Amino acid sequence: MRETLAKWRPAIDEAIADLIPREIDVDYLESFFGEATYEYDPDGLQRALSDPIWELLDRGGKRWRAVLFLVFIDAFGEDPAAYLPYACIPEILHNGTIIVDDVEDEAAMRRGEPALHHLYGEDVALNAGNAMYFLPLKILTRDPANLPADRRLAAYEMLMDELNRTHLGQGMDICWHNERDVRVTPEQYLEMCACKTGCLGRIVARLAAIITDQPAEVEEAVARYAELTAVAFQIGDDILDVENSLGRAGEFGKEFGNDIREGKKTLLVIHAIEKSDPERARRLQEILQADTNTDEEVLEALSIIEDTGGLACARERALDLAAEARAEIDGLDFDPGTVDKLHEFTEFVIDRDA
Amino acid sequence: MRETLAKWRPAIDEAIADLIPREIDVDYLESFFGEATYEYDPDGLQRALSDPIWELLDRGGKRWRAVLFLVFIDAFGEDPAAYLPYACIPEILHNGTIIVDDVEDEAAMRRGEPALHHLYGEDVALNAGNAMYFLPLKILTRDPANLPADRRLAAYEMLMDELNRTHLGQGMDICWHNERDVRVTPEQYLEMCACKTGCLGRIVARLAAIITDQPAEVEEAVARYAELTAVAFQIGDDILDVENSLGRAGEFGKEFGNDIREGKKTLLVIHAIEKSDPERARRLQEILQADTNTDEEVLEALSIIEDTGGLACARERALDLAAEARAEIDGLDFDPGTVDKLHEFTEFVIDRDA
Repeated sequence: MRETLAKWRPAIDEAIADLIPREIDVDYLESFFGEATYEYDPDGLQRALSDPIWELLDRGGKRWRAVLFLVFIDAFGEDPAAYLPYACIPEILHNGTIIVDDVEDEAAMRRGEPALHHLYGEDVALNAGNAMYFLPLKILTRDPANLPADRRLAAYEMLMDELNRTHLGQGMDICWHNERDVRVTPEQYLEMCACKTGCLGRIVARLAAIITDQPAEVEEAVARYAELTAVAFQIGDDILDVENSLGRAGEFGKEFGNDIREGKKTLLVIHAIEKSDPERARRLQEILQADTNTDEEVLEALSIIEDTGGLACARERALDLAAEARAEIDGLDFDPGTVDKLHEFTEFVIDRDA
Repeated sequence: MRETLAKWRPAIDEAIADLIPREIDVDYLESFFGEATYEYDPDGLQRALSDPIWELLDRGGKRWRAVLFLVFIDAFGEDPAAYLPYACIPEILHNGTIIVDDVEDEAAMRRGEPALHHLYGEDVALNAGNAMYFLPLKILTRDPANLPADRRLAAYEMLMDELNRTHLGQGMDICWHNERDVRVTPEQYLEMCACKTGCLGRIVARLAAIITDQPAEVEEAVARYAELTAVAFQIGDDILDVENSLGRAGEFGKEFGNDIREGKKTLLVIHAIEKSDPERARRLQEILQADTNTDEEVLEALSIIEDTGGLACARERALDLAAEARAEIDGLDFDPGTVDKLHEFTEFVIDRDA
């Protein structure tokens, strides 16, 4: 998989630069957005759009959403190189949500450097992030692959479907974060992940299926695969945060107990509160609710989670989801090389930092 | 026009409530967004979406975008009542941009009460605002008017076109606001208005034309009408701010010199800086750049603007734009009653507070 990622990355970044160039001029603005009614300001739009967008993209990210899209195109028997502009759709959408989420979560850092709103101001960052929700969707109108009209319409309808659910997921996440008590069920937590993270995965898979005109049941199977993988990844993230923190007891420092300090209501926390005695459940909520935590409080919260077997339980759930994802692929008629690649995507769920 | 607005308002609000009800339950979530994969949290989504959205809608707003859409539907010979859900598209989009703009502009108030992010937090407000960018677009998929596929595709393509340009307009506006010097040309200012405000007007007009299957030249004429009217309105707003402030000299208070205090680079300011001698132009920029202004400084800025004839010049431009807008309508084959209504919309440009 690493090879596949490395192989495609330069071509993907070139395709993104065709949609939003590093240097904005009037020719680009006219060809992408249409003639100005009066007069564009390319210098302003350089600073308002291109600079912040490329600042984030150049910091890294594996472009795995674009690559997964290309793997599916290949699996469906088409030439991935012919669909590069479409591969940018989920990738640009994803990076847009990152910018907006960082404002909403008041994040300080992103990919090892200050979050964009700290560099450019909230106004520029938010507008650039929101612009990234619509910029890539114009690709379907520009139609570089000359798709029939019914495929373009199906793609738009799918995107509206999934982008609506993305905002449900973010809405639930934000709302829970602002609540004092943990009242969420494990199934609601999985729904939040399925909406917030899973829908972008579903866009990757469904877009590839729609563009290559696959039957509805194939589109749904790859969508389920992508959603399940995304949810498993999210749980994997939550587990890694606790494991890393437990591994570091004694060192502490910045990376220690991030999720506890942020008061995140992860699957592990939900499980621990369900399974602990009322006194310890109350204490865990108290630590999560506090604006700041001492290292000792973080350790105490971690030990409440550990004592209920939350880690093992969450790990089992993540592995089950990854297995379900693989089963969706096994039901399809892909060649063995593709099946291997798609299985590989699900195997990083728990072991990716090991 | 007042009558037309008042007549339709209850039906429009009912149609909006069908899309995003005041009380969210699982039935609504399943029917609008599809079945949950795991389990929705209707209580959380009530607080994350419905509460903030209806808080804003219930504060007022004339719903003129929805009404103008219905006027066009009527003008095109169809029954407006059959297209009420579509009338909600520009209206919900507009209210979404208001929430997001208020965060970006750090606005304190909206429609006489605290801006939404002050009531609900930036995270909830932003996510609700962004959700309003996608919620109404699902109407085309739900397709209550049973439109042919080519009309639905044309509507999606039009929306992507205009929503992309909206973000260009906001990008220019934000960028200029953050710059010290006024370097913008009058034509760039008009472009910013055409993109930021005009595109929502264009959506109103083009959507009505697309849905009722008008020829391309009719769609373009009503789009130009709506764009010109919106730009004229924006300039009218800028003029009213200066006029009201001049009329109040001696009273001062909160409403006095709003745009100057915010450092807005309006058409009047751009004109004044072009036409003043270098010393006064420099002084005007200095006052606009300052974080706070005394009442005397505001008065000084207003007198620099007044002395260059900026008010008369901007008023002339706004009236010209309104006349151009009416000319677009006069070229079409509408009945006299509709023409009157559409003319009326353009006549509030300068005189609406008189």
